[in-house]
Amino acid sequence: MSRFFGTPDGVQVGQFFIDRRELQHAQVHRPGQAGISGTGKEGSDSIVVSGGYPEDVDHGSYIIYTGHGGQDQRTRRQIADQRIDAPGNAGLITSMVRGLPVRVIRGYQARTVFSPPAGYVYSGLYTVTSWQTVKGRDGFQLIMFRLDQIEDHVSVEPAPLVESDAEFRQTTISRRIRDSAIAREVKSLYSNACQVCDIQIEGFGGRSYSEGAHIRPLGRPHLGADSRANLLCLCPNHHTQLDIGGMYISNDMVAMDAASGQSISLLRWRKDHRVDPANIAYHRSLWIPELSGPR
Amino acid sequence: MSRFFGTPDGVQVGQFFIDRRELQHAQVHRPGQAGISGTGKEGSDSIVVSGGYPEDVDHGSYIIYTGHGGQDQRTRRQIADQRIDAPGNAGLITSMVRGLPVRVIRGYQARTVFSPPAGYVYSGLYTVTSWQTVKGRDGFQLIMFRLDQIEDHVSVEPAPLVESDAEFRQTTISRRIRDSAIAREVKSLYSNACQVCDIQIEGFGGRSYSEGAHIRPLGRPHLGADSRANLLCLCPNHHTQLDIGGMYISNDMVAMDAASGQSISLLRWRKDHRVDPANIAYHRSLWIPELSGPR
Repeated sequence: MSRFFGTPDGVQVGQFFIDRRELQHAQVHRPGQAGISGTGKEGSDSIVVSGGYPEDVDHGSYIIYTGHGGQDQRTRRQIADQRIDAPGNAGLITSMVRGLPVRVIRGYQARTVFSPPAGYVYSGLYTVTSWQTVKGRDGFQLIMFRLDQIEDHVSVEPAPLVESDAEFRQTTISRRIRDSAIAREVKSLYSNACQVCDIQIEGFGGRSYSEGAHIRPLGRPHLGADSRANLLCLCPNHHTQLDIGGMYISNDMVAMDAASGQSISLLRWRKDHRVDPANIAYHRSLWIPELSGPR
Repeated sequence: MSRFFGTPDGVQVGQFFIDRRELQHAQVHRPGQAGISGTGKEGSDSIVVSGGYPEDVDHGSYIIYTGHGGQDQRTRRQIADQRIDAPGNAGLITSMVRGLPVRVIRGYQARTVFSPPAGYVYSGLYTVTSWQTVKGRDGFQLIMFRLDQIEDHVSVEPAPLVESDAEFRQTTISRRIRDSAIAREVKSLYSNACQVCDIQIEGFGGRSYSEGAHIRPLGRPHLGADSRANLLCLCPNHHTQLDIGGMYISNDMVAMDAASGQSISLLRWRKDHRVDPANIAYHRSLWIPELSGPR
């Protein structure tokens, strides 16, 4: 049976489950014990937030969630690095890159204001919006994921005339382009030409389009700045490639293809615009840890 | 003075203004009389919703707004077609293509549940998410815009550690990629290779990325279906170009460059996937009215 992404028929957001067996039976979380369901090839379809890692932080609408692996089964202490190729971790990265929705289940063990007093609650769909490696309190590498709740657009936009209303309810957002006054400044500096490939996407009536790409991501846990020193003017393809780890920037400001290690091109610069090398190093450390110096 | 996009310092969403002169003074809406502020070159920075056109519909979080031009000054009846090169209309199209935020002001004249009993209220920032031409009740062409309210991310994600918090508050969303179970099916059918250029965007660890592009847009006023017959698997660049009217699909399923009228490529198809010609005709009618038959 192929992996199912989304909320199963008959299951409601906010629904309670007595134990893991009930979660399994309702197809909400299939593994009997693992916190993350999924594989690198297919993506991850669900996670249980149950307080197994002290580094987890539950903010309600978004969650900082520790990957799996490296714990001693008995003491629950970290005794080895977590690995990005462990199935659950690789699955969450695939879900991020592909924009797959992840079911989030909160267990009583987490003891936060969002966890139920007993059993489990199905908290709806989230998307993985970023990840990074950090040193945990025991000195080993942990993989931290940020998951953001997917807004339910049905409430905002009732669309009874849409042919397939059921499908519409499954609509999720996999990628958002955030814009700001500074991003518009940078894009205007380049007349919307991509700093990597010089392409200018043409729209209606000669209007052109580009995207302001934040090198160090905005928002927690990265908290990159919305500033010229953290922005590139890119075409949507190179912006996507930067955001999903397929491209990085070398110290001499060359855009590199991460898979082949070959250069794509030297970045084009306009007067009064340079980015901070610390930001490109931060971006590399997210995706290509072996290429990054100490942070 | 260059045109300012966003909420001026010192102005609050929900703030009331006695008359148009106060709106001008606070830099909320600069023209003395026109409903749309802006030009095709710079984009449009603000509109006043004041009931001048019976075709307007105010849904609160989104607005169907009629462009300007073609009215008899005295009778307020439509006596000519509205034109997409009239400054305000061209400005709103530029704001859509570039993702510029538009200040929305509601006037007492509109007499909807969202308009104030007297004077004007500043309702915050919206983005233009689509437009189309329609025949109005007097038989002339009207240009209808859809504007969607920009969510304020500050409330969801307080980020006091961000270097420039003030800038962060100006963050807006210019483009959202919506995904669905059907879109994921189509993307998987093509192994994420673009149906126009065959490019496959590579991400971390060999994971690939593509986008499900709805040919007839989802949501009001278009109400396109989330179905295989309305979806293409595209790279972000060609998806963007389709969405902003720089590319259209001919009746013989060739992707065409709208500016040059030259073909880009024949669409690549996989078994069991074809789109409905009515959807590509609808898309053409949005952007290239002269190429479309009767709707």
